[in-house]
Amino acid sequence: MDLKSYLSNSCQRVDDWLDTNLPAEAQVPVSLHKAMRHSVFAGGKRLRPVLCLAAAEALGNSTDDVLPLAGALECLHTFTLIHDDLPCMDDDDFRRGKPTCHKVYGEAVAVLAGDALQAVAFEMVCRFKSEHNPYDAADFTTELAIAAGSLNVVAGQVMDLEGEGRDLSFDELRAIHLRKTASLLCTSIRFGAMAGKADPAQLEAMTTFGHSLGLAFQVIDDILDTTQTTEQLGKTAGKDEAVGKATYPAILGLEASRAEAQRLTADAKAALSIFGDQAQRLNEIADYMLDRDY
Amino acid sequence: MDLKSYLSNSCQRVDDWLDTNLPAEAQVPVSLHKAMRHSVFAGGKRLRPVLCLAAAEALGNSTDDVLPLAGALECLHTFTLIHDDLPCMDDDDFRRGKPTCHKVYGEAVAVLAGDALQAVAFEMVCRFKSEHNPYDAADFTTELAIAAGSLNVVAGQVMDLEGEGRDLSFDELRAIHLRKTASLLCTSIRFGAMAGKADPAQLEAMTTFGHSLGLAFQVIDDILDTTQTTEQLGKTAGKDEAVGKATYPAILGLEASRAEAQRLTADAKAALSIFGDQAQRLNEIADYMLDRDY
Repeated sequence: MDLKSYLSNSCQRVDDWLDTNLPAEAQVPVSLHKAMRHSVFAGGKRLRPVLCLAAAEALGNSTDDVLPLAGALECLHTFTLIHDDLPCMDDDDFRRGKPTCHKVYGEAVAVLAGDALQAVAFEMVCRFKSEHNPYDAADFTTELAIAAGSLNVVAGQVMDLEGEGRDLSFDELRAIHLRKTASLLCTSIRFGAMAGKADPAQLEAMTTFGHSLGLAFQVIDDILDTTQTTEQLGKTAGKDEAVGKATYPAILGLEASRAEAQRLTADAKAALSIFGDQAQRLNEIADYMLDRDY
Repeated sequence: MDLKSYLSNSCQRVDDWLDTNLPAEAQVPVSLHKAMRHSVFAGGKRLRPVLCLAAAEALGNSTDDVLPLAGALECLHTFTLIHDDLPCMDDDDFRRGKPTCHKVYGEAVAVLAGDALQAVAFEMVCRFKSEHNPYDAADFTTELAIAAGSLNVVAGQVMDLEGEGRDLSFDELRAIHLRKTASLLCTSIRFGAMAGKADPAQLEAMTTFGHSLGLAFQVIDDILDTTQTTEQLGKTAGKDEAVGKATYPAILGLEASRAEAQRLTADAKAALSIFGDQAQRLNEIADYMLDRDY
């Protein structure tokens, strides 16, 4: 299967699973469940679930059993987007090409839809069942909680907000991106590896891959914010500069940022060498993420 | 030990555990960790953790092993309070006698402190370890996620907000209170019972107890909102009426509301009969909750 078909096929599997496993819109409170589904089904790239599925496949698990983990990652990610977009945070009107949750459902329901998506992510994680797996529900739950929590994703968002209008060093910016973006991306890949019963050396290689890929992803994100249009991005372009946010291009320049993304992607792929051909799909995805234009 | 000493001793054990297990204020981002601790250590009654510990004791588990579950319940509860108090929700300036999280740390950090407290609650749940226990980390995580999620606590808050200014029936009000309050209170008792390796009949009895006690708690809360001062409550008194919220006293009158709380408390205690003397402490707590004045 070529990469394009693979990505679209994986997205479809994740979307179908989420559609079946998220509460229906008709469930009370209707506004809440509509808001949750509005944001989950707003057309994201499903990068985290796809990386989770591809990592599991690299370790020989290509079953639908992995879908609860993939779905949980997307719900957790969508929750962070809803809250990041709130008026008291980044105050964004568009996301994934659609009006943001609070623009459609109001701030209160948006906050609560995010809260409920975080909760359901943990419920989903526990639907992953795998016999004779060295990793259990406590491992998956703990890892997701730490990635989502006050030392990682939430920390990154606080540091991002507190950095607005300040001159950040390269190291400070990297510290934000590690927490805000790389931590959950790395967890996505680790979840797949754990679902594939990775041994310690394999899990360590996947962790290195996820870590570098996560950083590369955010460098590209920063570049796209300055070079693409709002229509291309599906969210407000040029936002970082407008609110005085530090970005890789602002600190390094565009060319050096592109080189940094290439270097990080090469680092990521190098970590997969122990998997040989089994890592081909993950390598393709890493290249695709580097070359993406949205 | 008399009840007063028991409650204060249990609170202290929970507070000590939380103090040790929540990230220190000095951890980056400092503002976030200060905000989390501001709300967690604002002097709550620790009712959910205390009920969890007392239920475990009724089943013969009086060890500190239960504290991660008790701590998780308090973090989850505190997260909901922080978000409920936000300007876009109930817009409250005081809680537990102190300025609310967003008044001190701003809205963005308050939203994120709540988010991080939800995440850490799931991490804490997984720190509960119990050998030969029929309930595992997946059971505890799933139960907490469902109690916290879009069909329970979050549902109750949405329904509460959407009910403002509307005439609700007794059944509609009860449906809100079941979700907003009784679900997490019931989970608190169930967590204790599960930590005590309750058999199915014992868990069912504890569930009935928790369900009725949770409803009784909210009836009393509604009564206190109309009869006590802001100083006594530690939060703005008379708030329900001011924003046109349906309450038990508004629908039933004060006397009938008191009778309803008594009836629910009696129902709760009756469910514990199968435990005999082992349930004495839980019965005392139920009576204390009925007679509380804050």
